[in-house]
Amino acid sequence: MTDRTPLDQLSADDLAAFLAKTQADYAALKDRGLKLDLTRGKPSAEQLDLSNGLLSLPTSTTDATGTDVRNYGGLEGLLGLRALFAELLGVEPQQVIAGGNSSLEMMHRTVTSLLLWGAAGVDAPWKDAGTVKFICPVPGYDRHFTLLADLGIEMVTVPMHEDGPDVEAVKALVADDPSVKGMWLVPTYANPTGSVCSVEVATALMSMPTAAPDFRILWDNAYALHHLTDVEVKSADALAIAAANGHPERPIVFASTSKITWAGAGVAMMAMSPVNKAWFLTHLGMASIGPDKVNQLRHLEFFGDAEGVRAHMRKHRDIIAPKFAAVQDALEGALSGLGVAEWTEPTGGYFVNLDVVDGTATRVVQLAKEAGISLTPAGSAFPHGLDPRDRNIRLAPTFPPLDQVETAMAGVATCVALAAAEKLSS
Amino acid sequence: MTDRTPLDQLSADDLAAFLAKTQADYAALKDRGLKLDLTRGKPSAEQLDLSNGLLSLPTSTTDATGTDVRNYGGLEGLLGLRALFAELLGVEPQQVIAGGNSSLEMMHRTVTSLLLWGAAGVDAPWKDAGTVKFICPVPGYDRHFTLLADLGIEMVTVPMHEDGPDVEAVKALVADDPSVKGMWLVPTYANPTGSVCSVEVATALMSMPTAAPDFRILWDNAYALHHLTDVEVKSADALAIAAANGHPERPIVFASTSKITWAGAGVAMMAMSPVNKAWFLTHLGMASIGPDKVNQLRHLEFFGDAEGVRAHMRKHRDIIAPKFAAVQDALEGALSGLGVAEWTEPTGGYFVNLDVVDGTATRVVQLAKEAGISLTPAGSAFPHGLDPRDRNIRLAPTFPPLDQVETAMAGVATCVALAAAEKLSS
Repeated sequence: MTDRTPLDQLSADDLAAFLAKTQADYAALKDRGLKLDLTRGKPSAEQLDLSNGLLSLPTSTTDATGTDVRNYGGLEGLLGLRALFAELLGVEPQQVIAGGNSSLEMMHRTVTSLLLWGAAGVDAPWKDAGTVKFICPVPGYDRHFTLLADLGIEMVTVPMHEDGPDVEAVKALVADDPSVKGMWLVPTYANPTGSVCSVEVATALMSMPTAAPDFRILWDNAYALHHLTDVEVKSADALAIAAANGHPERPIVFASTSKITWAGAGVAMMAMSPVNKAWFLTHLGMASIGPDKVNQLRHLEFFGDAEGVRAHMRKHRDIIAPKFAAVQDALEGALSGLGVAEWTEPTGGYFVNLDVVDGTATRVVQLAKEAGISLTPAGSAFPHGLDPRDRNIRLAPTFPPLDQVETAMAGVATCVALAAAEKLSS
Repeated sequence: MTDRTPLDQLSADDLAAFLAKTQADYAALKDRGLKLDLTRGKPSAEQLDLSNGLLSLPTSTTDATGTDVRNYGGLEGLLGLRALFAELLGVEPQQVIAGGNSSLEMMHRTVTSLLLWGAAGVDAPWKDAGTVKFICPVPGYDRHFTLLADLGIEMVTVPMHEDGPDVEAVKALVADDPSVKGMWLVPTYANPTGSVCSVEVATALMSMPTAAPDFRILWDNAYALHHLTDVEVKSADALAIAAANGHPERPIVFASTSKITWAGAGVAMMAMSPVNKAWFLTHLGMASIGPDKVNQLRHLEFFGDAEGVRAHMRKHRDIIAPKFAAVQDALEGALSGLGVAEWTEPTGGYFVNLDVVDGTATRVVQLAKEAGISLTPAGSAFPHGLDPRDRNIRLAPTFPPLDQVETAMAGVATCVALAAAEKLSS
């Protein structure tokens, strides 16, 4: 396939021929009457089945410390489960809070707590600070952005690279502007690029001077354990790096078992400095008498230990790695050499990032939709859904069965080529 | 026992003799080296055991609509469970949101949403309104008050009567002051008085004019189904009454299964007008992808239907009614006729409200503590823990075994009498 000529180097006649052929391919695609969905970064039923052992757990109603998990209390979660995930996240058990079924809720509570009360040790609620800005590496996770938008927090973007966010761009934003108070980061197998934040980048982020004394990095390590290859990359140790660089309160780490056990019924976790933890628990304690410890014990019994989680994740990998390979095969097979798209080849996480010809992402999504293939709306990986180059599309191949991924991706490739040919011909 | 003379009518000699005898009783009590706890309004292990069937549920991973409960989604909760609790609460299923394990979290989210965004249809965040005041019937639920205190909301108190809060006092507070924006109410078997809000009082509260257009009543119906006698009182239908009186958005109803199944691992619920529900879900949707639907299906399968819940609650009644009777027996046996205490005889809920001689509640709690009997701190049923008359003590008899309730309450009665005799003698 490498002998293809890039579309923008074709003669007018050859381009017209390519357009005609691609239009015919697309017409045939529409005639198939497909109904396929690549929008959702959620596990498939086959993946969820891996955890059906949870249905008859826990076998006990007390944990190893003798706590009756059925009753009230235990605001920071069961020690056993916190210890297990502390090992997996490379932190100390006493740094961890185990919560309910949603790390997004924990992130939302963190941001609203910062707004309402201000950061730990800084008696200045962000709600009283006038403008509050967050740095958002793009493309990124749409729910991070909608959460901030709903709270009236301004978003400033920096590019996401293979080794994490653009450090120089971040440094420039935080250096002089005290209204830049926060930053999102998915450090490992980022949504949607698959980027893995290097220790060097993490160190730069945790050591850089910031005009805001209460600058926080929300370190959403949602995919810390979600490897797609034999190389099980280890996340940079944000808490230790930050502490060693004199900013122990800067990072707040989030994780969950949503894509380990069950997306709707897992356990979410946070990890942070002792000062941050005391701050968070103070306000959490006004809203909750404790998390669902039965579900925490259910998970603890199910996994047994940290190695149990790692082994479990390898079963996920066996199911989803072929789907990611199918995405690569379809894009490579149909588009390589045409110069109409670039895409990531992630080694973990849940997404493939597809960049098409500038100004055609919306058209590609529309073409796919008309052919019965649902894609995430163009621009959704940018604040307010606005991709300034209209080129970014997030592909989520985990949920549909493999054959549907293959079919859908062949169709997507046709749409990408058609939109590019249309643009060049216009 | 009714032939006792009230302490304040005793001669000085008789009072001295009473004091000496009660001091001897107290010394004997201390010598027993008790370690008993009446502080916590939480279910006993025997009550929790009633729901151990949950341990091997659900048997299915899809609900009646075909939804895979293991995956993301379904922000308002499973329809089947919402329908079941709608029947129990006397509302429509479409008015209900089923959430996580904590109605307190739903209340906290409601108040913070009002602060951050303002009420539905009123584009005026409470955080920008300057002073915000809540009406708090007293004695009341300590966590309601600590939640508000943490958010900087001022609390103004009104007396709680047997049929609900003092309506005239409430009306006077809301009539002219637009900063009075909210009110707590536990309408059925209130914490700690056991009061049941009558339809008349509910109608007055839902129809009264308020200076604040965004006045809200947080109707925490935590004990709606928690009857202690054969008379299963029906809560006033707050939503219907409010709608009929032109204020459909005024009440927001909360409930949970925390004291039905498991205190730490139940399902919490809200019910409200369509306008309020849309408002709440808009902001909830920024913080959550959906509740733990597996636990919701677990509960739905466990109960089967509304009658299943009612039958289950009768089993709780059989366990805890004797404990409440033991409280009555101990207080009546030791204190009746002495004029040193008044107490409620609740027909539902989790508490007995004990009012001792003014200025002695703190002393009673201290005496009990020194005798190895833990009571809720005096004043805890008032905002900021400040009981202006220092007379109120909340008794929570459900958690300890019956024999411990008997022993503890005999000791409490001794402490009440001693503190009263000390005061009168001083």
